Amino acid sequence: MKTDKQRYWGILAYNGSQYQGFQRLSHGQPSIQGCFEKALLKVLHVKTTSRAAGRTDAGVHARGQVIGFDAEWRHGTDALQRAINANLPHDIVLTAVGEAPEGFHPRYDAQSRTYIYQFYTAPIRDPIHDTTQWWVGDALDFEAMQVAANLLIGTHDFATFGRPTTGEVTIRNLYEAAFRFGEDGLHRFQITANGFLQRMVRTIIGTLVVKVGRGQMSVAEFEAAFQAADRARAGPAAPPHGLILEYVEYGNLLNR
Amino acid sequence: MKTDKQRYWGILAYNGSQYQGFQRLSHGQPSIQGCFEKALLKVLHVKTTSRAAGRTDAGVHARGQVIGFDAEWRHGTDALQRAINANLPHDIVLTAVGEAPEGFHPRYDAQSRTYIYQFYTAPIRDPIHDTTQWWVGDALDFEAMQVAANLLIGTHDFATFGRPTTGEVTIRNLYEAAFRFGEDGLHRFQITANGFLQRMVRTIIGTLVVKVGRGQMSVAEFEAAFQAADRARAGPAAPPHGLILEYVEYGNLLNR
Repeated sequence: MKTDKQRYWGILAYNGSQYQGFQRLSHGQPSIQGCFEKALLKVLHVKTTSRAAGRTDAGVHARGQVIGFDAEWRHGTDALQRAINANLPHDIVLTAVGEAPEGFHPRYDAQSRTYIYQFYTAPIRDPIHDTTQWWVGDALDFEAMQVAANLLIGTHDFATFGRPTTGEVTIRNLYEAAFRFGEDGLHRFQITANGFLQRMVRTIIGTLVVKVGRGQMSVAEFEAAFQAADRARAGPAAPPHGLILEYVEYGNLLNR
Repeated sequence: MKTDKQRYWGILAYNGSQYQGFQRLSHGQPSIQGCFEKALLKVLHVKTTSRAAGRTDAGVHARGQVIGFDAEWRHGTDALQRAINANLPHDIVLTAVGEAPEGFHPRYDAQSRTYIYQFYTAPIRDPIHDTTQWWVGDALDFEAMQVAANLLIGTHDFATFGRPTTGEVTIRNLYEAAFRFGEDGLHRFQITANGFLQRMVRTIIGTLVVKVGRGQMSVAEFEAAFQAADRARAGPAAPPHGLILEYVEYGNLLNR
């Protein structure tokens, strides 16, 4: 029997503080996917599975998570977006929705992903910034951090910075790794690659801040650790609450 | 009997999201003062009352709340600060402490108070900014907002913007009312006066954004509403979660 189902793409923004990550979990713990599919069920009156560009970890935020789902809906995409948003909790927002080409898969069709990591330097912790930015203490060597970050750009084995899932290749193409240091002490790190290994962004920024920024690792030592492709040579992973999945690129595939 | 009690001043930074305001409440609802005095009790082993420069409302944050309290303490102010911080929850930080002159009162001795209000313009709500910034939609008339704000500077009757407590005079000296509009859509409003009426900052920024910024009130109409000294002529109060008590000035009174 033929149905009138259409595949849709959507962009989700969320504050991940209260969630155990994107992926729906079996134990009833709060997840972004679980909340989104609950909203889909309310709107479409049928159980609907969603897929995402990236499975963000517990506590990680997104401004540009891309999801895909199938639906029978006759009232246009604006009404669909409003209806879903009306059924989402306050910390999850569907910021856009559109009709996707047949077979669209948000994970496999993605050409690149951009993450932003937010952190701040201050002699004392600031509980107002604390919810979405990592406090890194005072006085970092900003110049060394950017010089080290530049070494990441290109096609490399990133095994030092990320855990591969079984059998996964650890080579990635990294297009951008740029700091924007703010005079007010609020800093951002923006990083774009065709894909990331598990914990890769947090381990890169953690190493750049804790090791390079604090002078525990020279740029040359950072380069050697990177080339060693050895997970044990990296610094600690930065905490999840500073990380934002900012943008996923699909070329001309989506009409956004 | 003479005691060795010393009066101290301290600076509190807090994220007010989880609190019913600064003031200790009788019904066991969480308050900043309640948490701070619980920490004092743990450190000093004696019930100690604290006073504050301003009673921030439920949900309002602070980076420069000034408190005063008496204590017998022989280990120096650095150790006192560390001991108190070790007993405070994660969203409250004592950022400084020092010995205060005899009779110091954080409220009555304050010469001026500075508040910052954080808000952002965006076509769609951003759940990451949402915790400490007010979403005001898109496209505001920034120029009209600043021109209207300039009218507030000086000695005026602020009855339009704030509720007086019984018998309180509604005249205040306002020293600064400045917007800093960010290209990234993140904006700040900084306002300094010798004192503020209840809800005054939130009503001023609410009127400037909702009425003047959205073109529902011209600058001339804003001026007329201000001069009328009539609470009914103001716009709505902005929500508490964008407001930060940033700084309280005591001239040369405190050794900070």
